[in-house]
Amino acid sequence: MPGISQKAHDMPASPIRKLVPYAEAAKKAGRKVYHLNIGQPDIETPTVVREKMKQLDLRVVEYSNSEGISAYRQGLVNYYASKNITLAAENIMVTTGGSEALVFAFMTCFNPGDELIVPEPFYANYNGFAVMAGVKVVPVMSYIESGFALPSIDEFEKLITSKTKGILICNPGNPTGYLYSQHELEQLRDVVKKHDLFLMADEVYREFAYDGAVPGSVMNLEGIEDNAIMIDSVSKRYSMCGARIGAMITKNRLVMAAALKFAQARLSPPTFGQMASLYALETPQSYFDGVVEEYVERRDILIDGLNKIPGVICPKPKGAFYCIAQLPIDDSDIFCQWMLEHFHHNNETVMMAPATGFYSRPEPGRQQVRLAYVLNKESLRNALVVLEEALKVYPGRNK
Amino acid sequence: MPGISQKAHDMPASPIRKLVPYAEAAKKAGRKVYHLNIGQPDIETPTVVREKMKQLDLRVVEYSNSEGISAYRQGLVNYYASKNITLAAENIMVTTGGSEALVFAFMTCFNPGDELIVPEPFYANYNGFAVMAGVKVVPVMSYIESGFALPSIDEFEKLITSKTKGILICNPGNPTGYLYSQHELEQLRDVVKKHDLFLMADEVYREFAYDGAVPGSVMNLEGIEDNAIMIDSVSKRYSMCGARIGAMITKNRLVMAAALKFAQARLSPPTFGQMASLYALETPQSYFDGVVEEYVERRDILIDGLNKIPGVICPKPKGAFYCIAQLPIDDSDIFCQWMLEHFHHNNETVMMAPATGFYSRPEPGRQQVRLAYVLNKESLRNALVVLEEALKVYPGRNK
Repeated sequence: MPGISQKAHDMPASPIRKLVPYAEAAKKAGRKVYHLNIGQPDIETPTVVREKMKQLDLRVVEYSNSEGISAYRQGLVNYYASKNITLAAENIMVTTGGSEALVFAFMTCFNPGDELIVPEPFYANYNGFAVMAGVKVVPVMSYIESGFALPSIDEFEKLITSKTKGILICNPGNPTGYLYSQHELEQLRDVVKKHDLFLMADEVYREFAYDGAVPGSVMNLEGIEDNAIMIDSVSKRYSMCGARIGAMITKNRLVMAAALKFAQARLSPPTFGQMASLYALETPQSYFDGVVEEYVERRDILIDGLNKIPGVICPKPKGAFYCIAQLPIDDSDIFCQWMLEHFHHNNETVMMAPATGFYSRPEPGRQQVRLAYVLNKESLRNALVVLEEALKVYPGRNK
Repeated sequence: MPGISQKAHDMPASPIRKLVPYAEAAKKAGRKVYHLNIGQPDIETPTVVREKMKQLDLRVVEYSNSEGISAYRQGLVNYYASKNITLAAENIMVTTGGSEALVFAFMTCFNPGDELIVPEPFYANYNGFAVMAGVKVVPVMSYIESGFALPSIDEFEKLITSKTKGILICNPGNPTGYLYSQHELEQLRDVVKKHDLFLMADEVYREFAYDGAVPGSVMNLEGIEDNAIMIDSVSKRYSMCGARIGAMITKNRLVMAAALKFAQARLSPPTFGQMASLYALETPQSYFDGVVEEYVERRDILIDGLNKIPGVICPKPKGAFYCIAQLPIDDSDIFCQWMLEHFHHNNETVMMAPATGFYSRPEPGRQQVRLAYVLNKESLRNALVVLEEALKVYPGRNK
């Protein structure tokens, strides 16, 4: 029997999915499971998308252009302009989700063995895309004590070698919810300029910024137009993760021309999803206002509630819909599994993502979990009660 | 400015798309261009898909399972059973087109530097996926004189080294239309078994088999259950290329488990496209009968017509909807460009794909073009007249 590849061995299993069998068993046993483990929001897709998709009748469901449907790319130019990001259509390549944009960006910019510095904790699938491209992820630690602020530039400088080709950030951040300040973005600008690195920014949570904060974009950092690559997606913006439509955006013409060759090999991004994304551009501001209001309330309930539980610490995020909480436990992998396997309160339990999978090695995440506030307020309140009760009796509680 | 990667340099430009600017210029000049260059059929997507998609109203356009929607995978089991291919749902992973299935298969099975033997001419994008995975494509020549039949197994044996990890075929074949006999498939079975190689088969043209031929599947070759990987797609079957739904299929559990990690990293295949593919399973047999009848007529018109043009040779394919024709010309790249740039007959011209891009090096394809019979019969007849007239006056005609 022929063997599988080294990459197949190295490819990390999803830190979120490994608990799925335990959640399924809990449900089979008649328990209610609050899913705070994944970024699948319960928010409705905008009405305009649902209505227009029902009108859509494609005689032939054809390939689109490899770089995306022209009308959609032009629509994106207008969308970004409304966010004070000035782009031309040729700076925008439509991709199959933000995931494909990251794969194309990594493959276009990095050779196998090249190093990519990423503040940790980070979105776990960056590891997977790095394995696919043979890229080495070099983590730089951010800390819960400072709310996961950008590590000092000295820490970046210490890690830069002749192999370093880029820095990747997520802003607003998954899994931390941290939103970088303009000053922090400018510090990153200076370091990538000094060392001639790519600066890739996953900005898919742009719409989810709270307390009056306005996320800055790497596309607006002057002097690094050829270094900056933005990753975007409609998944969270319009609550249509299943559309699988994202974008890779750069003003670097060489990078875009090379990335287009990867895009041409896979023919085109999904046509139905692109049409849905085109229609979504008509989503009224009231939709976003309502969504942000909802998320602020959920955040306040969850984070305030977490910090009231003895031994729990959780910084209040300014963006996205995740938080990393520190719990008084021995091991988050064991704890999260125990919650599903052995604990219930009023026949309810909570599924969370152990933070071990969001660090380059498990240790810094041993006492941390990631929670996504993607459920309604009542569910969040109930989940908090369950968690508090669980921590009272968990055998591996820290003394 | 940071530089792009070696893979980005190595990535081949699409052999089909490089002529697009010339086609656009011809259209701007008021000429009608017959597109025989691409595999985008004009056949209508089945009515059941169009009707049911209009009824579809997803409140939240959610991610599906990474391996695909359960009901669709189960539906595929029944579909394959109707083709005498016995599978279980866990043998089937739904992918974003056949393209992604190939990328996952290459990344799962091959290390960078491993060798993959592919009969040439072959689908040009295999090159691109090989570059992405760092795999070396080792071509084995098939010849127009034998209608592009499988090269002798001796020719395969000569190419097998310690680096060889697989053989990839396309059956029925793009770009040749050749359909492998059961004897040929068994020869391949014997050689992959002997050398412990993977046998990957791109079987996306299964429905397009003519003259009573029934394509054999690698999934039915006894004794190589752990070696065989089938690549499939709904793109051509239901004329819905834009759905971007394919499948990677294998009974090898290790390969499937590893491939699933790649699938999880990109979250899920497109939800809309999967729903369309689920509905497409209800397509009546009369649809396929009509489509095959249409393609047989088109094939006969095109191939018979080509062979009547002085100096043109074209074997009659038994499957898919492509043919490779040998023309009395100096250079197919120059000829195809010349057709668009300098030739028109009754203000009409023809766009074809130079066959140079379907070989591992351009030479064997210099006098060959690939034509896709994806247009209606009248257009094909007109295109043949244009081609015949063009060959009469082309300055680079062979003496």
